[in-house]
Amino acid sequence: MSSPNVAVVGATGAVGVEFLQCLEERNFPMSELRLLASARSKGKTMKFKGTTITIEELTPESFKGVDIALFSAGGAISRELCPVAARAGAIAVDNSSAFRMDPNVPLVIPEINPDAIAGHKGIIANPNCSTIIAITPLWPIYKKNRIKRLIASTYQAASGAGAAAMEELRASTEAYIKGQDYKNTVLPHPYAFNLFSHNSKIDPATGYNEEEMKMVKETRKIFGDPDIRVSATCVRVPVLRAHCEALTIECERPITPKDVHEILADAPGVKIVDDPVKNYFPMPKDASGQGDILVGRIRQDISDPTGHSITMFVAGDQLLKGAALNAVQIAEKLV
Amino acid sequence: MSSPNVAVVGATGAVGVEFLQCLEERNFPMSELRLLASARSKGKTMKFKGTTITIEELTPESFKGVDIALFSAGGAISRELCPVAARAGAIAVDNSSAFRMDPNVPLVIPEINPDAIAGHKGIIANPNCSTIIAITPLWPIYKKNRIKRLIASTYQAASGAGAAAMEELRASTEAYIKGQDYKNTVLPHPYAFNLFSHNSKIDPATGYNEEEMKMVKETRKIFGDPDIRVSATCVRVPVLRAHCEALTIECERPITPKDVHEILADAPGVKIVDDPVKNYFPMPKDASGQGDILVGRIRQDISDPTGHSITMFVAGDQLLKGAALNAVQIAEKLV
Repeated sequence: MSSPNVAVVGATGAVGVEFLQCLEERNFPMSELRLLASARSKGKTMKFKGTTITIEELTPESFKGVDIALFSAGGAISRELCPVAARAGAIAVDNSSAFRMDPNVPLVIPEINPDAIAGHKGIIANPNCSTIIAITPLWPIYKKNRIKRLIASTYQAASGAGAAAMEELRASTEAYIKGQDYKNTVLPHPYAFNLFSHNSKIDPATGYNEEEMKMVKETRKIFGDPDIRVSATCVRVPVLRAHCEALTIECERPITPKDVHEILADAPGVKIVDDPVKNYFPMPKDASGQGDILVGRIRQDISDPTGHSITMFVAGDQLLKGAALNAVQIAEKLV
Repeated sequence: MSSPNVAVVGATGAVGVEFLQCLEERNFPMSELRLLASARSKGKTMKFKGTTITIEELTPESFKGVDIALFSAGGAISRELCPVAARAGAIAVDNSSAFRMDPNVPLVIPEINPDAIAGHKGIIANPNCSTIIAITPLWPIYKKNRIKRLIASTYQAASGAGAAAMEELRASTEAYIKGQDYKNTVLPHPYAFNLFSHNSKIDPATGYNEEEMKMVKETRKIFGDPDIRVSATCVRVPVLRAHCEALTIECERPITPKDVHEILADAPGVKIVDDPVKNYFPMPKDASGQGDILVGRIRQDISDPTGHSITMFVAGDQLLKGAALNAVQIAEKLV
């Protein structure tokens, strides 16, 4: 495939907008770009490389002649239309969770398991944002010194719940400052100067929510290691678009912060931001709008006297590496 | 001591205001209440139980006739004046970190080690807010099944850095929403819709900041267990006045979420908020203004297959149980 026809499904969403941005900035080679969205957006236009593209209504017939379809329109639409796109000859790169754990669907972070792409049968899944942001910097460590256990606490931005959630955070905070009432409609709890456990469904048997179990299962699939032990606590914080995570890892052999610094110095998709003197570490403010995962606070986990454990803090743009950028990187591997 | 003369040192600060609130709400028995603050606040007044009290300037002579002095005016003032207050015959209950690790000074959470109070020599230290909020609910578990290891990730509110930091969060967020510039002067990083590693000094040898090491050392002293292994990642989030923490504990023997629910059901100072069906868990919004530490997301740590580990999420008012309330509870034990 040299100069594919590309379709963006869900072009007007928070991730859709970033798809266009990534395709433009990375000068993705294309013959044609089609923007697909719900009937509500039909006829509206979006800018791409200085030209104006009119949004078409998404239907099962939308994929004729499409080579690569970048999906980010929710799980229900993906479940219905990714197979339709695949049957029409397109390769669907799907940002939803619909197919991630399907054994016939590769789940890919290009820095980690690009070779998995070759096994696709028309659908390739993009991992969950929290998974990508945690494990992109962990993989180079894993390759040198197998990670046996990961404990993650997330600080997740509004963007993971879509553009409407970002607006709810902004509008509810404005109302709070003005002393006005605000009725939240997108997220289950008041968001202004508040935080809450991730709003995905909870398994009553285990107490873990779906976001947390995505991190557990997707890490195993992407690393190809069914034995890696992962536990996560996923929390939404009043931040607009970049996720942070506190990560504690336990390795097979002893490991030092210096080892981690050396391993990550040239790691793809990772940038070390770790300045104890200036007290400067990964922040959402700095991660927003950039493709790399920022990694800092790299230190020995002093609660593990065996020296096998490291703790660190990461930040990544949820809409870029956590979603659109990773999908476009997958598409680049197809071209 | 039956009806002591009480002085509040730092009466106009974020914690000082809460001292007055706690003394009033709990109907603390007093003969006299003196409000002490810097020369800047001298002559200003504050309300207490419907009466008006004039603020006096804090000097080394302020403690004559004072029985209990509640300090919250920063480490430098505590270092200078707690010993002065003690020599004048008062008992200083100090909210700063100045004396916490002094072997001659009891470090007390009344729900945990009230007996330590008796050994005071005129100064009793109030623990760090993050420590109190983490370990008040852990102690009842510890007593039944010794906790060997604690890994904590904090989500700390602006109030921990004082009233000026709370105002910086509010004002910078307002400016952000209006699209205006804002120059932060209280905290080292922009705070609006951002988060950052705790702004205390970092030990270059270990990479841990002072806030994190307070949690490590204070937990050992309060539990009377020099062997408990603690690791913390302390982070400031854009929340006004309640801290949250994700806690993972490893116990000496196997433990289940049901065990923890049973242990904490009647634990003092703790309230279980753990409703997976309604997705309702501890939040700053609910913890603000209440004395109890909220505990939820109680679940088995699935990264420890031995069944010895539990993970949970807690929230507590940084200004109340994390500061003023705990100090007033200590004072109550003196009366």
